[in-house]
Parts: sequence; C-alpha cells; structure tokens
Amino acid sequence: MERREQILVAAAEEFDRVGYAATAIAAVARRAGVAQGTLHFHFPTKLALALGVIDEQNARTFAVVSHTDASPLAALVGASKGIADLLRTDPIVRAGIRLSLERGEFAGATSSFYEQWIGGIVDVFRLALGSGELSTDLTAEELGGSVVPYFTGVQLVAEVRSGRADLDPALAVMWRMVVHAIAAPAHRERLLGVVAETFRTR
Amino acid sequence: MERREQILVAAAEEFDRVGYAATAIAAVARRAGVAQGTLHFHFPTKLALALGVIDEQNARTFAVVSHTDASPLAALVGASKGIADLLRTDPIVRAGIRLSLERGEFAGATSSFYEQWIGGIVDVFRLALGSGELSTDLTAEELGGSVVPYFTGVQLVAEVRSGRADLDPALAVMWRMVVHAIAAPAHRERLLGVVAETFRTR
Repeated sequence: MERREQILVAAAEEFDRVGYAATAIAAVARRAGVAQGTLHFHFPTKLALALGVIDEQNARTFAVVSHTDASPLAALVGASKGIADLLRTDPIVRAGIRLSLERGEFAGATSSFYEQWIGGIVDVFRLALGSGELSTDLTAEELGGSVVPYFTGVQLVAEVRSGRADLDPALAVMWRMVVHAIAAPAHRERLLGVVAETFRTR
Repeated sequence: MERREQILVAAAEEFDRVGYAATAIAAVARRAGVAQGTLHFHFPTKLALALGVIDEQNARTFAVVSHTDASPLAALVGASKGIADLLRTDPIVRAGIRLSLERGEFAGATSSFYEQWIGGIVDVFRLALGSGELSTDLTAEELGGSVVPYFTGVQLVAEVRSGRADLDPALAVMWRMVVHAIAAPAHRERLLGVVAETFRTR
C-alpha cells in the first residue's frame, strides 16, 4: 500500500470509530505508522483528510456501479449488493459514508456527493424507463432522488440495529418494495428473481 | 419553560450544531442561561444529557403517531408529515434524530430507539394488513423494518441536500412508491389522494 493510501485508511478507521470532531491527527499518524510531518505533507489539515476519504469512497463506490447490464434495474440491484459488500469490508467506504452525513465544515463536499450519486442513479432509471422495464408515473429524477435515500437509510439503520449483519436481507426487502412499485408487469417476476438471487444470504 | 426543558433545548441546539463529540457542557450551560452546577444537578454527564434529548425526542415523535385512523396507512402518512414538521421546528426532535445515528457511548439507547419505532410501525402495518388495505407478500415486520429506514434516509438526505426545504415533496415520492408497492387495488387511488393532500406544498 502506498503511503498516501495508508494514511487514508488509518484516517478512515479513526473517523469511523469516533466521528470527525473527536478524531485527532496524532492518532491517525500513529495508526498509519508515519510521522506527523509526513501526514501533514500529504494532508495539511483534518478537513483535507476527511475530504480525501470522501473522495476515495466516492471513487470506490462509483466503480461498483459503472458496469452496465442488459437490465438497468438489475444493474442497480447488483450495484447495491456491491456497495453493501464494500461497507462490510472497506474502512474507507464505511468512513466516507459516515462523514457524508455529518455536517459543518464539509457540508459542501457532502452535498455534492449526494448530487453526483443521485445524478448517476437517475441516469440508470432513465435507461430503465426507456427500455420498457418500468411502468410508473414517477420520473427518473423522482426515482433516483428516492432510491438513493432509501438505500442510505437502510444501511444506516442496519448498522445501528445489527452492525450491518442484517444488511443483505434488508436490501432484499427494499428492492422487493421498489420492484412491486415500479416494474412493468412483464418484467416483475424476472426482477424479483434477480433480487432473490443477489441477496440469497439466508 | 421549566429549567430541565430549558437545559434540554440548549443541549439539543448544541448537539444539532456541532454533534455529540464536539459539544461542551459549558457551552450548553451558557446557552441555557444556567450555572454549570445547576446543569450537573439535572444531568450529571454529557451522556445523560444526550440520553435526555433522545428520550424527549422519542416521546414527542411517538405522540404524533399515537392517534389512530380509520385507515392505518393514511395514519402513517399523517404521522410522517407530523414528524417532518417537528424536524423543521423542534430542536429536540432534530438533535435526537441526529444523535440516534451516532454511535459509541449511546449505541444501546439508539438501537432500542429504532426497535421501538419499528415495533410501533409494524403494529400499524399489521392493522393495515388485517383491514384489507394492503395486498403484498411482505410481512408487517418486513414493511415496518423497511419504511422506518426509508423515512430516516429521506429526511437525512433532504437535510444534506436542501436543509430539509425539499423534505415534503421527497416524502410524497416515498409514499407514492410505498402505495404502489403494497396498497390493495381498491384502496390505491384513495391513498394516493391522501399522500397528495398531506404533502400539497408545491
């Protein structure tokens, strides 16, 4: 692991453990096994460190969504499973998503994070509407602007209730709701099958 | 306002502004206009203060849901509007919901907060299933366990994106999704009407 990433991972672990306000630069340097001077060279402030974590989380989670699929809605189901797996295994993703719901100093970065995310998901819903996969009077903007918060809430409450042990079954219920709400009748059974197959964890 | 509530409101404003870790007892006492000794008499620790805010938020939000309705799903739509209004106007509700997503010291209180909430909403979904208002293969437990996180995510992302200015239209989209997903055909139009009527803010 290169030095910069090593520092980001250490920062992510501290942010995830105690939150932004309580994170001390000295503790991050100690955890990363670097001198404070080295840390300051890469990230001059705690804010720079937090923005670095959010950016990196952004890149890693977007990478999961970037592949397309013959079925746009199936691609979203798969992406949500990919992000759920990252939340369990990748401290940068876990911390980035946690930071993105804090406010204050990095409210700007955070708000643009959600705009990007929602924008990306809106594009997929637009494809899904165009492909005839959906039957709904909700627009692509409304769908993207609602499914991203739905996922956000499901993963947060799963964290609080079970340390994310129940995240996969909770996402399966979320997608069953979404499929029943918006899938065209001809695609419903196939999409419910995709959901069951993707989250067959019980 | 009695002394104890005055302190809780001041604490809520500080928690909401800077989060738990960065909140200083001295700042809360100053904001409440009481001596630190008085504050310590009512709340011996910062944790006690946070738990007091969470408890009070819990009581205030539950009060909004407690009234029943001929239509269980319409009662939930109304309750979500009531909570949205409290989020905009009541610092204790705002701070309590924020604290309930932090972790660490009060993870226990927080997790039981969600269990109570989900339990209450599950009961309403059970009534809705019994009344024939719904047509779904999801259980009351799955519905309550998914709609509470959905609301949580919608209000959080609305806070990040617009300082909650867009919360009402976002909740309207959420309920349109839920109604399309689970309402019995005979009740669908009526329930969509309830949603439109409840959130007619544009």
